[in-house]
Amino acid sequence: MGTSTCVFCSIVAGAVPAHVVLDEPHAVAFLDAVPLFPGHVLVVPRDHFVTLCDLPVESVEPFVQAVQRLNRAVQDATGSQGIFNGVNNVVSQSVPHLHVHVVPRTKGDGLRGFFWPRQRYGSDEEAAVVADRIREALDR
Amino acid sequence: MGTSTCVFCSIVAGAVPAHVVLDEPHAVAFLDAVPLFPGHVLVVPRDHFVTLCDLPVESVEPFVQAVQRLNRAVQDATGSQGIFNGVNNVVSQSVPHLHVHVVPRTKGDGLRGFFWPRQRYGSDEEAAVVADRIREALDR
Repeated sequence: MGTSTCVFCSIVAGAVPAHVVLDEPHAVAFLDAVPLFPGHVLVVPRDHFVTLCDLPVESVEPFVQAVQRLNRAVQDATGSQGIFNGVNNVVSQSVPHLHVHVVPRTKGDGLRGFFWPRQRYGSDEEAAVVADRIREALDR
Repeated sequence: MGTSTCVFCSIVAGAVPAHVVLDEPHAVAFLDAVPLFPGHVLVVPRDHFVTLCDLPVESVEPFVQAVQRLNRAVQDATGSQGIFNGVNNVVSQSVPHLHVHVVPRTKGDGLRGFFWPRQRYGSDEEAAVVADRIREALDR
């Protein structure tokens, strides 16, 4: 999907309406239209990058600082106790333009988090093999 | 909880065993012992910061760059199609030391994501009020 058909690029450009709460050179933030809880915000880079990995180094600090500020503001504005941040890269990514979810959380809010069926490795050796593979991939 | 009793600080210090896959000045990464899927990694700042908001500006770029590298490496090492990144700040945060989840994802893997009961705002006016509150909080 190119920028011309990207709904988040259209929101950034002002061509598609949204409740924009922050509009800065490196980040634009707006209400998720179908929130988990009221105040659920999406933070996107102004330019069209698909995943977190695609965000260029010079954008990382200002973009993530915008997320930090939104975390504080959403918690403050909603009177929540914490914030969940989530990024789906490719799989489960509904719009292929990087977006960080800023979701207000309160204990007992019913959000299950993303922690279902988790299970330990079959053995420590099995885990060691996986760790080796990741270290090798880091070196490539 | 201070650093002296923090299990992630203990892993960083080498006092508690873990499958460490990356060890750098601004970030340490290791296998989650109870993964959603094999290769599920936690990336933590070396120093004890509780939430994403607590990460100081000078650490943001190197820390998030480490997350970007881990996203690529975990996807590569596990042959997955995408990556989910999640951060629980305070609520649902099992260890009060900032940790970014790097979870390998593949279509049809059964992970439900964090998208349950979502619902639209009752009206556009209702959404506008919430957006106003967030803008005001950003200005504070």
